[in-house]
Amino acid sequence: MSKETLISHLRNIPDYPMEGVQFKDVTSWFMIPEDLNEIVDSIYEMYKDKGITKVCGIESRGFVVGAALAVKLGAGFIPIRKPGKLPYETVSLEYKKEYGKDRVEMHKDAITEDDVVLIHDDLLATGGTMLASYNLVQMFKPKKTYINFIIELYNLNGRDAFPKEVPIDSFISIDEFA
Amino acid sequence: MSKETLISHLRNIPDYPMEGVQFKDVTSWFMIPEDLNEIVDSIYEMYKDKGITKVCGIESRGFVVGAALAVKLGAGFIPIRKPGKLPYETVSLEYKKEYGKDRVEMHKDAITEDDVVLIHDDLLATGGTMLASYNLVQMFKPKKTYINFIIELYNLNGRDAFPKEVPIDSFISIDEFA
Repeated sequence: MSKETLISHLRNIPDYPMEGVQFKDVTSWFMIPEDLNEIVDSIYEMYKDKGITKVCGIESRGFVVGAALAVKLGAGFIPIRKPGKLPYETVSLEYKKEYGKDRVEMHKDAITEDDVVLIHDDLLATGGTMLASYNLVQMFKPKKTYINFIIELYNLNGRDAFPKEVPIDSFISIDEFA
Repeated sequence: MSKETLISHLRNIPDYPMEGVQFKDVTSWFMIPEDLNEIVDSIYEMYKDKGITKVCGIESRGFVVGAALAVKLGAGFIPIRKPGKLPYETVSLEYKKEYGKDRVEMHKDAITEDDVVLIHDDLLATGGTMLASYNLVQMFKPKKTYINFIIELYNLNGRDAFPKEVPIDSFISIDEFA
């Protein structure tokens, strides 16, 4: 399937969740078996030789392709969640958002120093939540950490939020207003 | 792997989220590659010949194995979410909980009358959220609907909440206090 065909299936929600934002609704891809399979397969191909032992998915759209990737890669799946959602003892990191603060949490035994980690989320916009998640994962001192998105909105320059040496990849890179 | 070994890996959180509840923390399975793989593979074997075209996962622990199953079954993945989380037009259903009310939502184009649906969640306790999700899915008039859980707490008799003809299966059936 061409990326043009895939992009034609991607629902764009104007002014969601706030005015001026063109929201990319990845559920319009998840519902089509061929599209979901193409996304998971393509991302799997990017990482299959990296020795990934844990895939972290960011709540909650990042759980979908994140979990499918974990199974395909033979890795464990780790949820990165909003405050108060994980039942066991957690480590957490607070970060600034445009308005106010937020926090990401993981179980304290989620990652070891022997792990090679892939952190996945559906979309890279300004990168705030992923940067916090990356810094949280680094607290566990894993061997290596990769970052992956389904969609990267390149006009928002979210990559600039990360240290240059962090390996960041996306399935598709588009303009927010494409 | 034996089910006894798997059960020995399942973290039990006493008095979470409220006193007297023995919470089964499925993230302790998701983090171990062999356990996650065994769960997904075993559930896949139950449904591989059923012609499943859509797997619905219930927010948000149901997204993990639900999404992995969708990819393995060659089906689409549909999120069933709490109110206000889906960006496009929704259909929804209100239901009673022990204290107050709640609501489940799906995108209005999520399922067609040609679909064979598998609804997945991590755990069957009293069955309230799954029953509401089942009734919501039935509003789309799919050909057939199956229900699946990773864990069934059989002492809570959650199955009794459902019409007798609904096909319900779980990967593992245990006592809440096991």
